[in-house]
Amino acid sequence: MDRLIEAIASVGNPSVVGLDPKPELLPKQLIDRAHADTAKTLDADGSTSELFAWTSSLATEYLRFNLTIIDAIADIVPAVKPQIAMYEALGVNGLLVYTATCRRAHDRGLYVLGDVKRGDIGSTAAAYAKHLSEHELWMEDAVTVNPYLGVDGITPFVDAAKEADADVFALVKTSNPSSDEIQNLTVADGSMVYEHVADLVEEWGVDSIGEHGYSRVGAVVGATHPREGRALRARMPHTFFLIPGYGAQGGTAADVAGMFDGHGSGAIVNSSRGIIASWRRSDRYSEDLGYDEALRVVAECARDSALSMRDDLNAALDR
Amino acid sequence: MDRLIEAIASVGNPSVVGLDPKPELLPKQLIDRAHADTAKTLDADGSTSELFAWTSSLATEYLRFNLTIIDAIADIVPAVKPQIAMYEALGVNGLLVYTATCRRAHDRGLYVLGDVKRGDIGSTAAAYAKHLSEHELWMEDAVTVNPYLGVDGITPFVDAAKEADADVFALVKTSNPSSDEIQNLTVADGSMVYEHVADLVEEWGVDSIGEHGYSRVGAVVGATHPREGRALRARMPHTFFLIPGYGAQGGTAADVAGMFDGHGSGAIVNSSRGIIASWRRSDRYSEDLGYDEALRVVAECARDSALSMRDDLNAALDR
Repeated sequence: MDRLIEAIASVGNPSVVGLDPKPELLPKQLIDRAHADTAKTLDADGSTSELFAWTSSLATEYLRFNLTIIDAIADIVPAVKPQIAMYEALGVNGLLVYTATCRRAHDRGLYVLGDVKRGDIGSTAAAYAKHLSEHELWMEDAVTVNPYLGVDGITPFVDAAKEADADVFALVKTSNPSSDEIQNLTVADGSMVYEHVADLVEEWGVDSIGEHGYSRVGAVVGATHPREGRALRARMPHTFFLIPGYGAQGGTAADVAGMFDGHGSGAIVNSSRGIIASWRRSDRYSEDLGYDEALRVVAECARDSALSMRDDLNAALDR
Repeated sequence: MDRLIEAIASVGNPSVVGLDPKPELLPKQLIDRAHADTAKTLDADGSTSELFAWTSSLATEYLRFNLTIIDAIADIVPAVKPQIAMYEALGVNGLLVYTATCRRAHDRGLYVLGDVKRGDIGSTAAAYAKHLSEHELWMEDAVTVNPYLGVDGITPFVDAAKEADADVFALVKTSNPSSDEIQNLTVADGSMVYEHVADLVEEWGVDSIGEHGYSRVGAVVGATHPREGRALRARMPHTFFLIPGYGAQGGTAADVAGMFDGHGSGAIVNSSRGIIASWRRSDRYSEDLGYDEALRVVAECARDSALSMRDDLNAALDR
C-alpha cells in the first residue's frame, strides 16, 4: 500500500475519483454525438446490429469524457477508481475503453484502483488475479475483491499483489442500505459478520505490511457507517480503507474522519458523481454549448469539485 | 428457470459442462500453435508486446478448443457454464472469445450459464445486469452473482432476468475448503450465515416462480457439502441448485443426489475438467498426433465423459 500512501502524501489529498460513466452523467453534446455516430454506422453497414453500433459509439464518448476528466485532475488527486461494471454494460467494446481509461490514468501518474469486486475460488481466483500480475492487460494498481468465499479466493490476489507491487481491497462493510442483511448478522460470540470479515482481512494482510504500516490487503468500508467505520479503524490497525459513499450517497467529511488514523492517513475517500457529474450543477454548462465547450466545462467543474473535496476532507482531518 | 428445466428434461441429463480453459487443459498441439502464432505476430510487428501477442494467440486456441467441445456435446447436455475468469485472464481479447463461445453454445441450442459471480450495489449492479437484459452483448441465459451486499445487489439482476426470460444463481454454500470461514459462522439464532443467505435467496425468488415450481433465483451449492446440500434442498423448495464440485473437486453422484427434489429435478451438476480435459486420461491421445487429430480426440473424450457423467447421475437419481 506504500505507493498509494506516498501518492496521497505527494498531493496532500486523500481522495480518489470514481470514473463511473453512465449515459445520464454525460453532457447532451456527447450523447448526441453517440447517436449521430450510431446512425452513420448503421447507414454504412446494414449487418451491424443497433445495439452493437450504439454501445460502440457510446463507449467512444465514455473514453472522451474520462480522458477529459483525468487530464483535468491528474495533478491534484492521487488516484482514480474506474468501476468496471459501467464498461462491461457496453460489452467488450466497453472493456476496451476501461483499459484505455486505466492506461491514460497510469500514464498521467495516477494510482489506478480497479473496482471489479471479483471473487472466486482457487485456480479461478488465480485467473482473475492476472488483473494485477499481468499489469499490461488491465493497467490497474489495485482491485477490489469479494470475501464471501474465504481465504481460498483471496490468496491468489495477495500473491499477485506481492509479485506486482500492487494491492487488493476486500469488501468488509459496504455503503448500501441492504448491506446489513448479511454483513450485520450477529454471530454467536456477539460480534457481527462484517467484524469477522474485518479480522480475516487484517489477518490476510499480515505478511505484506509495508513501510508505512499498512498491508497490501485493504478494506472497503462505507462512509455511510461512521460509527462502525471508527470501530473498524481501531480493530484493523494495518488495514488501509477505501471509503465509498461520500457525497452523493450521503457520507460527509465528518463521517469519514474517524476512519483515518491519528496521522490523518490510513484511508482514501471515493467520490464519483460528485466529481465527474459536477458539470450538471454548474451554470457554466448549457445545452447550447458546442462539443468542445461542453467538455471544457466538464473539466473545469471536475477540477473545482475535486479541489473542494480535498479541502473538505483536509479540514475535517485538521491537516 | 423453466427454460433450463425443460432443456434438462429434453436430453434427460441434469449436468452442465464447465468451459474453463487453461493452458494446461489444452493439448500440446494447440499450445504449440499459439506459440508459433505469437512468434509470427512479433516478427511481423515489432511494436506489439509479447504479452499481447501471446494472450491473443492463446485466446484463438481457447476458442478452437471450446467450439470443438460444444459441437461434441451439444446434443447430449442441456447447458454449458463458461467461467469468465479464464477469459478475463487474457485481457479483452479473452473476453471476445468468451462471447464467441457463448454465441456458439446459444446457436447450438444450449442454455448458457455465465459464471461471472458479479456483485455490486444499486446502479452498478444494474450495469452488470446488462449481461442478461442486453442478451446480444454477452449471449448468456443466466449468470452467477455474489450475495454479500444484500438485496440491493440482487434486485437489478432479478429484474433483468424477468425482463429477458433469464435466470440468476446466487452463491450460498460454495464448494471450496475455506467457504466455512464466513459462510459457516454461527449466527445468534443458532443457524449459520449460509442458511440465512439461503433464506434470503428463497425470498428473492418468491415472485418469479415458473411453471415447474422453481423461481428465477437459483442457488450455488457445492457438491462437496452433501449433508448441508440435502438440508438446503428442504429449506429452499422453490430454489433451483447449481452444483459445482462434482468430479475433480471430489463430489460424487451419491453426494449430489440429495440436492435434487423427489422428481429428480431441482438441480444441475457442473463438471469442467472432468469433461473438457478428459483427453488427458485417454490413450487415444498422443503428442505425436496432428492438430486436427488432437482436436478429434478432445471431442471424442469430452463426449464419452459427458455420457458417463449423465449415466452416473441418472443411476444415483434412479431415473
